[in-house]
Amino acid sequence: MKTAKFSDEFWMKIALEEAKNAYEANEVPVGAIIVKDNQVIAKAHNQTEYYQNSLMHAEMLAIKQAIKKLGKWLYNCSLYVTLEPCVMCAGAIVLSRLYKVVFATKDPKAGACGTLYNITQDKRLNHQVEIKSDVLKELSKELLTEFFNEKRGVHKQRPVINIKGEYIG
Amino acid sequence: MKTAKFSDEFWMKIALEEAKNAYEANEVPVGAIIVKDNQVIAKAHNQTEYYQNSLMHAEMLAIKQAIKKLGKWLYNCSLYVTLEPCVMCAGAIVLSRLYKVVFATKDPKAGACGTLYNITQDKRLNHQVEIKSDVLKELSKELLTEFFNEKRGVHKQRPVINIKGEYIG
Repeated sequence: MKTAKFSDEFWMKIALEEAKNAYEANEVPVGAIIVKDNQVIAKAHNQTEYYQNSLMHAEMLAIKQAIKKLGKWLYNCSLYVTLEPCVMCAGAIVLSRLYKVVFATKDPKAGACGTLYNITQDKRLNHQVEIKSDVLKELSKELLTEFFNEKRGVHKQRPVINIKGEYIG
Repeated sequence: MKTAKFSDEFWMKIALEEAKNAYEANEVPVGAIIVKDNQVIAKAHNQTEYYQNSLMHAEMLAIKQAIKKLGKWLYNCSLYVTLEPCVMCAGAIVLSRLYKVVFATKDPKAGACGTLYNITQDKRLNHQVEIKSDVLKELSKELLTEFFNEKRGVHKQRPVINIKGEYIG
């Protein structure tokens, strides 16, 4: 039987849906999914506010779900995440032996998969992970920018329309 | 009221008791405690085998317990751990804003608090942590060496004694 092969963009869109769920829950909008054999086996979004726990990143929650399903090692699994993983998550990615990580936008302040560090490809550690970046990065960036602008009280200028639908400013 | 101030060695002994609990449960013997205001508020040992989850390091379990008690931030808390934290745990230490980390023995293969990386004192990240190493390091090293020797089938040569208590080889 031939299995359809989906593109990285296809999977990233699902991760972006998760990021939107985070946004709607007033969490920093980051989403992550884990894919194995063309199937989503884990899906999560950042929930640091919900749990009042700064370790509850989307990647950690998704990895936890995947381990629960598959056991200790995630060989042959790919993680799609809308923001470059931080040091903690990059460490967890190496420890759980993920095969590949695809992320949307780089994180200049905390990224550990090529930006501040390159933990996931460090040959001194006992596992290395294939990395691909910049997949649908604009969509993820836009969502993050909108979230932080809203937090700072910077709203998009929306046209003011009266009840007749006329533009009044 | 004057509060007795306990030494780092005092707290490390409690972390070592936790490491021994790990050893007895056939887990890599690493123990961790978190101390605030002269009180132990969290206590854990490595449970990667028990949970069949390679993220269940002593530090992660202790941090999780402490956050459950105190909320998101662990300012004014100190972590005592018998082995230098790895990348994942060092990331979690920074994210949870721990004040101080004291560890016993360095980890030449995965240590991220001075050995392979110095995550916990990286000024580019948004929190830095005071670090102290080599506290009761020989005791921790001995426990780890004994564990791995046992795993490799290398046992200490013990004298063979017959039922009369006589040395026979």
